[in-house]
Amino acid sequence: MKKILLIVFCLVFLTGYSQKRSDLKLMPWPKHIQVTHQKFIIDKNFKVSVNSDRGIILKSTTNFIRRITNKSGVFIEQGFAEVNNNDAQLHVNFDKISNLELSNDESYSLEVKEDQIIIHAITDVGASYGLETLIQLLSFNNEYFYFPTVEIKDSPRFKWRGLLIDTARHFQPVEVLKRNLRAMAAVKMNVFHWHLTDDQGFRIESKKLPKLNELGSDGLYYTQEQIKEVVQYASDLGIRVLPEIDVPGHASSILAAYPEIGSKKQDYRIERFSGVFDPTLDPTNEQTYVFLDTLISEVAPLFKDVYFHIGGDENEGKHWDENQKIQTFKKLNHLKTNHDLQTYFNIRLEKILEKYGKKLMGWDEILTPQIPKSALIHSWRGVNEGLPKGGALIKAAKAGYQTVLSTGFYIDRMESVVKHYQTKPIGKAVLTPEERARILGGEATMWAELVTPATIDSRIWPRTAAIAERLWSSKEVNDVDFMLKRLSEISVGLEDLGLTHIKNRDVILRNIAKSESITSIKLLADLSEPLKIYARNKDGIEYKTFSPFMLFADACVADASKAVYFNCLVQDYLKNPTEGYKNKIIKEFKSWQLGFANFSNLEVNPNLMSLKKQYQNVFKVATYGISFLNDKKKNFSKKELRRLLKDLKEPCVDTELMIVDSLYKLFNLE
Amino acid sequence: MKKILLIVFCLVFLTGYSQKRSDLKLMPWPKHIQVTHQKFIIDKNFKVSVNSDRGIILKSTTNFIRRITNKSGVFIEQGFAEVNNNDAQLHVNFDKISNLELSNDESYSLEVKEDQIIIHAITDVGASYGLETLIQLLSFNNEYFYFPTVEIKDSPRFKWRGLLIDTARHFQPVEVLKRNLRAMAAVKMNVFHWHLTDDQGFRIESKKLPKLNELGSDGLYYTQEQIKEVVQYASDLGIRVLPEIDVPGHASSILAAYPEIGSKKQDYRIERFSGVFDPTLDPTNEQTYVFLDTLISEVAPLFKDVYFHIGGDENEGKHWDENQKIQTFKKLNHLKTNHDLQTYFNIRLEKILEKYGKKLMGWDEILTPQIPKSALIHSWRGVNEGLPKGGALIKAAKAGYQTVLSTGFYIDRMESVVKHYQTKPIGKAVLTPEERARILGGEATMWAELVTPATIDSRIWPRTAAIAERLWSSKEVNDVDFMLKRLSEISVGLEDLGLTHIKNRDVILRNIAKSESITSIKLLADLSEPLKIYARNKDGIEYKTFSPFMLFADACVADASKAVYFNCLVQDYLKNPTEGYKNKIIKEFKSWQLGFANFSNLEVNPNLMSLKKQYQNVFKVATYGISFLNDKKKNFSKKELRRLLKDLKEPCVDTELMIVDSLYKLFNLE
Repeated sequence: MKKILLIVFCLVFLTGYSQKRSDLKLMPWPKHIQVTHQKFIIDKNFKVSVNSDRGIILKSTTNFIRRITNKSGVFIEQGFAEVNNNDAQLHVNFDKISNLELSNDESYSLEVKEDQIIIHAITDVGASYGLETLIQLLSFNNEYFYFPTVEIKDSPRFKWRGLLIDTARHFQPVEVLKRNLRAMAAVKMNVFHWHLTDDQGFRIESKKLPKLNELGSDGLYYTQEQIKEVVQYASDLGIRVLPEIDVPGHASSILAAYPEIGSKKQDYRIERFSGVFDPTLDPTNEQTYVFLDTLISEVAPLFKDVYFHIGGDENEGKHWDENQKIQTFKKLNHLKTNHDLQTYFNIRLEKILEKYGKKLMGWDEILTPQIPKSALIHSWRGVNEGLPKGGALIKAAKAGYQTVLSTGFYIDRMESVVKHYQTKPIGKAVLTPEERARILGGEATMWAELVTPATIDSRIWPRTAAIAERLWSSKEVNDVDFMLKRLSEISVGLEDLGLTHIKNRDVILRNIAKSESITSIKLLADLSEPLKIYARNKDGIEYKTFSPFMLFADACVADASKAVYFNCLVQDYLKNPTEGYKNKIIKEFKSWQLGFANFSNLEVNPNLMSLKKQYQNVFKVATYGISFLNDKKKNFSKKELRRLLKDLKEPCVDTELMIVDSLYKLFNLE
Repeated sequence: MKKILLIVFCLVFLTGYSQKRSDLKLMPWPKHIQVTHQKFIIDKNFKVSVNSDRGIILKSTTNFIRRITNKSGVFIEQGFAEVNNNDAQLHVNFDKISNLELSNDESYSLEVKEDQIIIHAITDVGASYGLETLIQLLSFNNEYFYFPTVEIKDSPRFKWRGLLIDTARHFQPVEVLKRNLRAMAAVKMNVFHWHLTDDQGFRIESKKLPKLNELGSDGLYYTQEQIKEVVQYASDLGIRVLPEIDVPGHASSILAAYPEIGSKKQDYRIERFSGVFDPTLDPTNEQTYVFLDTLISEVAPLFKDVYFHIGGDENEGKHWDENQKIQTFKKLNHLKTNHDLQTYFNIRLEKILEKYGKKLMGWDEILTPQIPKSALIHSWRGVNEGLPKGGALIKAAKAGYQTVLSTGFYIDRMESVVKHYQTKPIGKAVLTPEERARILGGEATMWAELVTPATIDSRIWPRTAAIAERLWSSKEVNDVDFMLKRLSEISVGLEDLGLTHIKNRDVILRNIAKSESITSIKLLADLSEPLKIYARNKDGIEYKTFSPFMLFADACVADASKAVYFNCLVQDYLKNPTEGYKNKIIKEFKSWQLGFANFSNLEVNPNLMSLKKQYQNVFKVATYGISFLNDKKKNFSKKELRRLLKDLKEPCVDTELMIVDSLYKLFNLE
C-alpha cells in the first residue's frame, strides 16, 4: 500500500500537473465546471450587490470584500456589499433563508464573465459557498488580479461534512474555534462536532450543576454566553453545531463533581493522562437520570441543532462488573451483558433528549437491536478495533439507521493526508437507494490528547480540506496528485482566516532554538514527522494534560514537505537515473549538510542537544550520499552505513525522519 | 542626532556586550540586583507554593508553571501551585491584596538560591511581578534549564506605565487585547488605556443609546460583557483599565448615531479616512449633557478604575465658528475663545463624571486655568505641534496637576526604539518634590490608522518593552546597546504569550508571495522600514479603514534588523577597514544578490512586481559593492552609481530601504 501511495505522490512535485482547468485551486472540486478563457479583472471599483439583506449573506459578502482586498492588495472602494445595486459587477442572489438543518439546500451556481459575476443559490448558505469558490478562483498575472471566467454548478455528495474538535482533553478557547469554523466554511464543511466533555474536563458552564465547572474543569470551560456566541458564529457561516456530552464512560470529570452517580464508591479526579478509564455513570441509579435530565434541560437550548451526541464509546464496564447492585439490576431486568445495560441507559437517555427536542447520536457502540431507529450512528471503529473494513457504517445503514463516518478520518493519528483522501465512505458496498440515503456523510476527528491551542491548527489544516473534498465532491474526484497540488496552495490561502497551521510551527522552533535563527531546525522539522497512530504517547502515559507541547515533535507535521520531495526525487532517479535527478538529489544532500552547519552555530540548550545526534547523522548520510552519487564510495563501509541508517530510523524525541526508506533504496541496501 | 544614535547602536551586533551581570535578559532592569554564581536547576519535581489563595496569585503562579514548562520542555509534574506547601522550592508570599489603584505597592524582592527561590511582596501584584522577573531569568546550558542565583529588590520609578490601544480606527477583537495585556504584564506595565471611540467608530455597546452601535460601529464593538471580561482579565494581571470616550471632537461616529447633538446641521457618517475632522458635539445644547450623562451612567460602572479619559484633543472648532447659536452662547457666557468654550464643556463633563465616581483625565488641550486641579493632564503634543520640548508635562506639574507623558512614546510613528528609549520624562526640569510627585509616568500610544489585528503586535512589540523600562527603571539605566541586546532576546521570549509580532510578518509575506517561499522578500523586508511619522498616509487620505493592510509595508517594522546590522558593519569598516569587516560586508552583499535571484523565481503578481525594481537595484548595488570592496570599480560610473543610490533612496510601496546612507558613505559619495 505504502509503495503505491508513494508513486502516486510524485509527479506533482517534479513535473507539475498538466495544464487544463487544473490551474484552478478549487477545493472541494465542484460538480460541474466549465472554464472559458477570459478574465474578470479586479480593480478598485469592484462592487458587490446582494438581493436581500436577510440571512447570512451580508456578513458573507462583507467578509468576501475584506478577504479579496487583503489577498489582492487592491484598494477596493466599496466597504460593504449593497442591496440591489445594479451597478455592481458581482451579484449574489438567493431565494430563501437557510434552515440550517440536514435538509438544507447547499447548491449554488457561479458564473464569471468578463464583466460580470453572478452567484445564484436556493439558500443564503449556498450563496456563501459560491463566494468561497470565487475566492479560491482568485488568480493573478504580473499586472492584475482576476477571476478566470467559468461556469460552475455545484452541490455536495454528502450532506454531513463535519469536523470534531475535542475541547475536553485540551481546552480550546473560543478564538481557536472561530478560526477553525472560518476555515471549515472556506472548504464547505457544515458540521462542527463540539466534543465538550471527557475524563479530562467538563467544558460547559452549568448553572444548575455548578460543581461540574468548579470541580471538573480546572476553570477552563465555555460560559453559556460563549457557547451561544460560537453557535451563532457557526450559524453565520452555514455551520451546524453538534454538541457532545460523552456518557456513561469518559466520565471522570463529571464524577469528580458528582461522585454519587458513579458506579463505584471512590475518589474521582479529573484525569490527567490519556486513554480509556474506568469511571462510569451508574445506569441503575435513578439519580443518574435526574442529573442527566437537569443537565440536558440546561444545555439543550444552547444549541439550535436537533442532534445531540451522547458519546457512548469505550465503556469497558469494569466498575459495573465490580458493583453488586448493578449486577443484581442486570439480572432483574434481563440484561445479559454490559452492552445490554448500556442500551438500557441509552434508551432512557434518548427519552430525556426527546423531551428537550433533541435526537440522539452516538458512537457506533450504541448500535444494538434495541436502539430506536431515530438514533444516528457515528461510525468510528475500524480494523484497529477488530471490526471489518468499513466498520459500522454499512451495517448501520442496512439496519435502518442514519449514519456518519469517522473511520479513516482520524486526523489526530498524524498519518498522510493521502490515506484520508483515499478513504471510500461507501466502498464497494451494494446499497439500495434508501440505504444509501442513510449514509449522511463523515467527520474528521481532532482528538486533543497532544494538541494545545498553539498546535491544533497544524494538525487539522490543510489536511482537512482534502477530507472536505472527499465528502463534498463526486467519488470520481480522486486524483491524488491533483489534490496534493491544490492542497499546498490552498494551505497558504487559508492563512488569511487567522489559522496558525504554518506560522505556529516557527513559533515552536524559535522557542526551541531560543532564537529567531531557525532555518536549520526548520529543515530538520520538514524532514521529520511526529510518531504516528498514538506511538508518540504510548499507552497514554508519556504526556499529561499540562506536559510541554512546544517540543520539536509539535513543530513537525504529517506529510513532511521536504521528505516527501526527497522521496519523490529518489524514486524518479531510481527509475530514470539522469544527471538532472542526480543533481537535484545532491542539492538536497548539500542543504542537509549546510543545515547541520547552521545548527551547530546555535547556542545549545537541552532541547537542541537532543536533536544534535540526529542531525549529525543526517549530515553524515548526506556526505556519504554525495560521494555515492559521485561514485566515490570509499568513505563508508556498508556496515557503517547500515548502522547509520538504522540509527536514523530510530525515533528521536517522538519524531521520525521520513527519508530513511528512500536512502536504503538509493544506496541499494534493501 | 541620527548619527549619534547609529554609533551607539553598533557594538551590540558586532562584538556582543561585555560579560558581567549583563548576560541576564531582564527588562525592565530591576532597581537592585546582585548576581551570585550558582544555579537553581529546574527539573520535573519543581514545585511552587503560595502563601494564600486570595488575590491574583494562584492565576499568576499557574501561568508561571505553564510558561516555564513550555519554555524549558521540562515535564514539570505539578499542574497548579499549592498553598503553603513546605516541600516546594519556589515560595511566593505577599501581605495583602492589591487595591489596583494608583497607590498600589508594586515592589517585590526575589531571591534565587541554589535550592530555593523566595519571592516576597507587599501585594499580590508585586509578587506576580516577581514571577515575571523570574521567567526572564530562565537560562540554559546544554544539560539543563536553570535560574541563576540572584538577589533582586525592585520597585518602579513611575507608578503609571501605560499602553494606549486605539480600538476605534481599527477595531481590535478581545483576543488581541488579551494577548497585549499579557505582554504588558510581562514587562510590568500597569495601565491599559482603551481608546474606545473616535471619528471612525464607537466601540462600546450602549443599551441606553443603542444607535451608537447600530449606526456608529459597523457592527464592530465590545459588548458590555466583553468589556467586563477584559477589565477582569487586566485586573488579574495587575493592570488598571482606563477607558477613553473622546469628546467633544473626534465625534463623527457619535454624531452618525445622534446628529441632533452636533454643532452643525448635516449628515454625519462614520469617518473612513484618517486625520482631524470637524464633527463636534454642541457644548451649548443641554441635550449634549443629557446624552453624556446617560452614556457615562452606563459606561462608568463597567470600569473599576477611578480615572476616565475624555479625550478633548484636536478640536479645531470649525463647526462652532459656523454656528450662530454657539457664537451667541459664547458671548452671553463671556467665553472669548473656542478653547474657553471647550473648558466650559470639560467642566460640565467633569461634574457628570464625578457624579458616577470618576475623575477626569484628558489630552493636554484641556489644560486651562479654569480646569479643576483634580483633572489629570495627558501630555501628547510636542515640538511637532508647536510646543517646546517637554510639552505640557512640566507645565501641568508646575501648575498643580497630576500628569502623564505620551510625547516621545508615539509608537505608531514607526521610529527607532532608541528614540523612545531616550525620551526623558523629566529631562532637565527643576521640580519641587511635590511637582515631581505629580508626574505619574507615561503611556506608549498605539494609534490604529494603519494597523489591523494582524499587524498591531509588530508595531507594539518588542519596542514597548523599552518604554516600559524607561518608566519602571531608574533614569541611570540608559545604555542603549544593552537595551537593544536584551530587547532582541526578550522579543522571542514574548511569543509564548501569543503575540504575533514575529509570526504575522511572515503571514503577510506569504500573502504577498502567494507561496511559502518567502526567504527572498523577507530579506528585503528586513532591509526596509515603513515610511515614518505619518508619511505613509500623507494627509490621511491614502488609506481608509477597509484598505488592504496585508501589504509589504505592513510586513516591515521599525529598526529593520538586517539594515541595522549592515549599517553597523559599514561604520565599523570605515573606522577600521580590516579584512574581517570587509568580508562581512561582502557576505551581506552576496546575500542580497542571492535574495534577488530567489525573488526572481517567484511567480510574479502585481504586489511582487512593485518590489521588483527596488530589489533589482539592491542586486545592482550589491554587485557594485563587491567589486568596489575588491578594488574592481570599473563596472559602474560614479554618475550611474549616484543615480542608483538616488533610486534606492526613493520610497517604494510606502517603505524605504534603510541601507542607503551607509552605502553613500561606503562608496565615498557623500
